[in-house]
Amino acid sequence: MTEFQIHAQLLSDGHRLGRMRTSHLLLHRNAALPWFILVPETPALDLLDLDPEPRSEIIADCAAISGYIKAELGLPKVNFAAIGNVVPQLHLHVVGRSANDPCWPAPVWGNLPPGPSYRLERLHTICIDLSRRCGLRVSWAE
Amino acid sequence: MTEFQIHAQLLSDGHRLGRMRTSHLLLHRNAALPWFILVPETPALDLLDLDPEPRSEIIADCAAISGYIKAELGLPKVNFAAIGNVVPQLHLHVVGRSANDPCWPAPVWGNLPPGPSYRLERLHTICIDLSRRCGLRVSWAE
Repeated sequence: MTEFQIHAQLLSDGHRLGRMRTSHLLLHRNAALPWFILVPETPALDLLDLDPEPRSEIIADCAAISGYIKAELGLPKVNFAAIGNVVPQLHLHVVGRSANDPCWPAPVWGNLPPGPSYRLERLHTICIDLSRRCGLRVSWAE
Repeated sequence: MTEFQIHAQLLSDGHRLGRMRTSHLLLHRNAALPWFILVPETPALDLLDLDPEPRSEIIADCAAISGYIKAELGLPKVNFAAIGNVVPQLHLHVVGRSANDPCWPAPVWGNLPPGPSYRLERLHTICIDLSRRCGLRVSWAE
């Protein structure tokens, strides 16, 4: 069986944090807000094309990340989307938002200005927290 | 029990087509592409805050609309999102996309230029097709 490959553009946009139950977890390199990207191991291209059971499992992983964003990072709002017009590989955006972030209330796609990078210590802490809270199996690669 | 109220901005943006199993169904007035908006009857503001069972039922309604977009309207791609930064009431976007549409590959939010309106006959046909295919209970209001 061929190893699952994450699309090069997603790897370029994000830090690869590890593996959740259904999906690989990336964190967008722009640290202005917590923008997670989940890449499920499926050949399907659209979330709504999936059968209900795998779809629910994938969305449960997204909900775990959303819970982390709200409970641990203290953000009041989470945007959730499956777009994939540019990168066809199925990937799900789970984005913490607040009225103080640099592109509120616009959606992040195409609107988030360049921002700071994550410090290595911060990425490490996020990985530890997510492994404890969401069962992330960390396989961090910058 | 107070009757569920759809947010005035959503009613302004879309034609109200009727009721699915979990959600009210609206169709964005810009007919350049099929942009459906589902408004579930829930006080929750974020999709990923819902419990798994009601969430799955709501997403099943979204998947039915997505199936209609692909099978009946012939569009190859569906964007799916729960944003709600401007209108806080939970609402889900299910948007048919193709490389020929007026804002491809950008997401529709904030990027879709003004476009044509639906003709009444076309709205009627869409309602009939959705009632047959997706169990829409039509309560059409322009």
